[in-house]
Amino acid sequence: MWTVHDFPSGRVKESHDVDIGQEWLERVQKSTVRLDGGCTGSFASPEGLVLTNNHCVWGCIRNLSSDEENLSETGFLAIEPKEERQCPGMRISVLRDYENITAKVHAATDGKTESDANQERKALLSRLEKECEDSSDLRCESVSLYHGGEYYLYKYHRYDDVRLVFAPELPIAAFGGDPDNFNFPRWNLDMSLLRVYDNGQPTEVSHFLPWRAGGAEQSEAVFVSGHPGRTNRLLTVAELESRRSDYLPEQLIYYSEFRGRMLEWARTSDAAARQVQQRILGYENGIKVWRNQLRSLADPVQMERKRREQAELRAAVMAQPELAAAYGEAWETVERALDTWFTIKDEYRFIEDRRGFSGSLTGFARTLVRGTVEREIPNEERLRAYRDTALPRVEQRLFAETPVDSGFEVLGLAFSLDKLRETLGPDHPVVKTVLGNESPRALAERLVRDSRLSDPMIRKSLWEGGTEAVASSDDPVIELMRAIEPRARELRARYDNEVEAPMSKANEQIAKARFAILGKTVYPDATFSLRVTYGAVEGWIEKGEPVYPFTTMGSTFDRATGEDPFRLPASWLKSREKLNTDTRYNFSSTTDIIGGNSGSPVINAAGELVGLAFDGNIHSIAGSYWFDPKVNRTVSVHVDGMLEAMKTIYGADTLLEELEIR
Amino acid sequence: MWTVHDFPSGRVKESHDVDIGQEWLERVQKSTVRLDGGCTGSFASPEGLVLTNNHCVWGCIRNLSSDEENLSETGFLAIEPKEERQCPGMRISVLRDYENITAKVHAATDGKTESDANQERKALLSRLEKECEDSSDLRCESVSLYHGGEYYLYKYHRYDDVRLVFAPELPIAAFGGDPDNFNFPRWNLDMSLLRVYDNGQPTEVSHFLPWRAGGAEQSEAVFVSGHPGRTNRLLTVAELESRRSDYLPEQLIYYSEFRGRMLEWARTSDAAARQVQQRILGYENGIKVWRNQLRSLADPVQMERKRREQAELRAAVMAQPELAAAYGEAWETVERALDTWFTIKDEYRFIEDRRGFSGSLTGFARTLVRGTVEREIPNEERLRAYRDTALPRVEQRLFAETPVDSGFEVLGLAFSLDKLRETLGPDHPVVKTVLGNESPRALAERLVRDSRLSDPMIRKSLWEGGTEAVASSDDPVIELMRAIEPRARELRARYDNEVEAPMSKANEQIAKARFAILGKTVYPDATFSLRVTYGAVEGWIEKGEPVYPFTTMGSTFDRATGEDPFRLPASWLKSREKLNTDTRYNFSSTTDIIGGNSGSPVINAAGELVGLAFDGNIHSIAGSYWFDPKVNRTVSVHVDGMLEAMKTIYGADTLLEELEIR
Repeated sequence: MWTVHDFPSGRVKESHDVDIGQEWLERVQKSTVRLDGGCTGSFASPEGLVLTNNHCVWGCIRNLSSDEENLSETGFLAIEPKEERQCPGMRISVLRDYENITAKVHAATDGKTESDANQERKALLSRLEKECEDSSDLRCESVSLYHGGEYYLYKYHRYDDVRLVFAPELPIAAFGGDPDNFNFPRWNLDMSLLRVYDNGQPTEVSHFLPWRAGGAEQSEAVFVSGHPGRTNRLLTVAELESRRSDYLPEQLIYYSEFRGRMLEWARTSDAAARQVQQRILGYENGIKVWRNQLRSLADPVQMERKRREQAELRAAVMAQPELAAAYGEAWETVERALDTWFTIKDEYRFIEDRRGFSGSLTGFARTLVRGTVEREIPNEERLRAYRDTALPRVEQRLFAETPVDSGFEVLGLAFSLDKLRETLGPDHPVVKTVLGNESPRALAERLVRDSRLSDPMIRKSLWEGGTEAVASSDDPVIELMRAIEPRARELRARYDNEVEAPMSKANEQIAKARFAILGKTVYPDATFSLRVTYGAVEGWIEKGEPVYPFTTMGSTFDRATGEDPFRLPASWLKSREKLNTDTRYNFSSTTDIIGGNSGSPVINAAGELVGLAFDGNIHSIAGSYWFDPKVNRTVSVHVDGMLEAMKTIYGADTLLEELEIR
Repeated sequence: MWTVHDFPSGRVKESHDVDIGQEWLERVQKSTVRLDGGCTGSFASPEGLVLTNNHCVWGCIRNLSSDEENLSETGFLAIEPKEERQCPGMRISVLRDYENITAKVHAATDGKTESDANQERKALLSRLEKECEDSSDLRCESVSLYHGGEYYLYKYHRYDDVRLVFAPELPIAAFGGDPDNFNFPRWNLDMSLLRVYDNGQPTEVSHFLPWRAGGAEQSEAVFVSGHPGRTNRLLTVAELESRRSDYLPEQLIYYSEFRGRMLEWARTSDAAARQVQQRILGYENGIKVWRNQLRSLADPVQMERKRREQAELRAAVMAQPELAAAYGEAWETVERALDTWFTIKDEYRFIEDRRGFSGSLTGFARTLVRGTVEREIPNEERLRAYRDTALPRVEQRLFAETPVDSGFEVLGLAFSLDKLRETLGPDHPVVKTVLGNESPRALAERLVRDSRLSDPMIRKSLWEGGTEAVASSDDPVIELMRAIEPRARELRARYDNEVEAPMSKANEQIAKARFAILGKTVYPDATFSLRVTYGAVEGWIEKGEPVYPFTTMGSTFDRATGEDPFRLPASWLKSREKLNTDTRYNFSSTTDIIGGNSGSPVINAAGELVGLAFDGNIHSIAGSYWFDPKVNRTVSVHVDGMLEAMKTIYGADTLLEELEIR
């Protein structure tokens, strides 16, 4: 997961005997796009066609569906651009430029108290982003690397009009569902095509990836560019233990119950089934990730290695008086911050983080209640979520014509209110204020029924009306979020000053200590910023048996049972005879990816697309904490599988003509 | 949790200045009863009246209810004995005698290999139990104390005809539901009265506890007798870590999802609501226990103490060559056993332990498939569940007229089949055999619809028809359990020989090492055998604030919201004016109890009943691993609360006349 500005071409040459030059890197950088929801894509034609995963556009597909027309079931194909349908609220960004601002950030915080440094850092980043945007037509976001060891300004071109071009049916895109998720061999057509528009016209883009028919052979070097979201490989042992004992079990308990509620509710009506159909896969994905992360943190060998590495680093720091004075306290500072976190975590998660108030309506209300207040104070003093450069996105989400599924909304809100009471107890002041004499279910039903926040025009008028309009609103969801705002703000302030501030300071110290002692031998933890990883097409050894790195389209039919999640769509059943069944379909590679890389192009040394990353194998989940090259594998759709499906099953001839197929 | 044969009267005298003699102990022993489902009760009159918790008879209440008559909602009161209703399958036992068989067991296993010793131990226990029953009219069960450090034969009088006499409504018995569970202050009338019968007549019993009006005052010494189920205080650190990293998270993930499914399913019809109403509280109780057990194992101070104690014991063993030779290997043996366990645990749980095949029907089928085979081999070679002395209970459960709730049955079976596939993967041979091309839901629906095992007569005829009848049965649930039996047996054999056998040996070694070095300074871990704990009526300090140890009946009305789980039944609302609202209702004490103590009498030094234990406070959950006297509290219904409710709310005058109230 190397940055494009620190890519180790020498190492790649050494291990894979291929030359990766500046031109290759720039083309890959400018052909790789970020989807705001936390995915990656790649330009596939000069006319702004974007290839990404099917599961990266589920939100769009759901927003374009209704009880009458379920695009998850039918799939979608626009024969001509005019049939392409805008995805409400979707945005796509391309990294165009970057600037190292480490010295500025460190200079602004050096010598300050923890909480002053924390505030000053955030103020400076807000200012630098704003100055950057004021002086260019790019969107500027600061990026922290190595947990504060380095800071960059990343400058993006952003497309605010994104349209759906092609999506196969959910049953084949997510064939095998949760049981097969994170497994390989695999048979998923987890692809979709989007297009970026400007002024109502498809946009011409300067860079794109040609597709390489035939893909890459076993052992061939491949690269994955993309926006991996979050890894935790540089965390201290105390932080890992806190994840093991608290964060991961709590996530699992909360979302496992919600999963059960969704699955049973989905059976009560067709509308409920449709509202749950895709969402459930996202939650199940999370559960599988957390569960296997927890398992990986129970691995005594790996944890012992972490302990040893940390002890060695600490010892090396303490051995040099200068380093000891500058960084020696860092590990104890982390433990102090975690102790404080432990005393506020339940309230913080449920009130400030809204775990007790889940859903779109409470999300809109929080934005309105908080954002209108924040907007009135100077940019650099605001919470970062409402800084000037973030406001266009805040507004875009607030005003987007995304439908609110009221059934799902009640389900989620009733559940989260129930958990709020369970976690904080019926006697907690916020619980009493919120519930009064109502049950969580009755309250959720009343709120969703009576709120008007599902109407984008109402949201817009409240936002434009500002603090006064929001303060006098009698919308019950606004009233609810207003009622908890004081306590939420208190919790946020405690978190910022007593948890985030010491953690930021300690992490920066540890990063600098690592640079001083070990040099820059590892790449930074993932932070949703652009990275390129390299490896090769390879299987692995599972319980003593070799796993072959390719599957074929034909074997999909052997795995199909006719029942979800092993049900094939009619289009596939109909095309079975015409299909070239030997076509390579999915494949595995040794590249290092993590959530956020979904939709990433898999690229050969010539800069051609050979696959579409959509998952990892089960061992890839431990990649959150360490990369084990023996077993950690990326799972991708093979370029030949996409081409054969588009041609033989979906008749997407115009799109095939648009692609540059080599 | 001392045994009656090792009760430390001297210590009690020292700490509480009361004299507990042999007579007191014998009366308490013979007045305390065990309910087969895992609860405790006490005789309350010479006519065989038994006081226990309401939540200990939920199974009976459900079995006596129907869609037309829901006794959970209405409550139940028999004015005369002829109105008392038999609880299907319920049994009650009283410990009459005991015999120390430690020397016999150790002599039979000394010097044998791990798995030979394991088999020999089980064979001997089956033989001793059988000889005991053949030579008396008591029911004999072996009991292991200190994880094999001691063995006893416990001899019970058993009552097979148990009838429901009185049960208040579920909403007041479990007032506050899951949110208030394990909390205090508390307002629960978690009581019920049963009666034991012989030959269709109420049984006269030799011992019972008179009730002490006024109860016990703050700081007064109190005792709790009962059958605590399971504590893990003498476990090795490796076993605790295994619970933390595997058992507890897996329980939480599984049952949290099932909880969610139950709650949403309960909303689909009145019948579903009734089938879930009580059961959900049991599952929620489990989730709260596991979650807080997990939290307690994340306590670095307590875990560090465990590590230190173990290291000290090991060091003391290794310091004496004789002890080192005899016991030194034990801790490594435990780790070896756990390593093996880790490789089979998923299959063992889902196939042999039936986690993938939950419900009554698969339970009956397992008993039929396995029990008919086991019955045909010699008593001492059988699996212990089917030894001669266990068969009457096996048959009683198999033939009991307990209704099978088919909706709940489908819900649970579909869920567990889904988890079977999720855990073992769609390619596991058992998963493929079981599911074929069916979905978990479709298979569960078909099995429950087509099976005839809900009919006790069918079960009886299969049981009596033996292996031949079972082998030729075309009942689909029998077919299912037959299909998985070979793999289940293999897993069981591996578990017995490679996990249980080394663990048993190691645990016995550790117990002996502890006796040798530390003497018998602590009581044995709970094993559902009779124990007596002592303490005093006390509150505690919670987050700096003192908690007063009593609540009053009147304050119940302040807490009621009208909505579940804070809804009061009509009987209470109607009686509010007549009620003596200052009556003490629930109270807390420093006694050391755990699950299985539910329904235990709280007794004063005079041997009179002053309360009815029904729960612990939240800190009592850590009692699974250590007892912290500063915060661990028992929560009980006060005797005055029971008397006032019976008199003023329920008009249970005949029962009040029957009690000996002092």
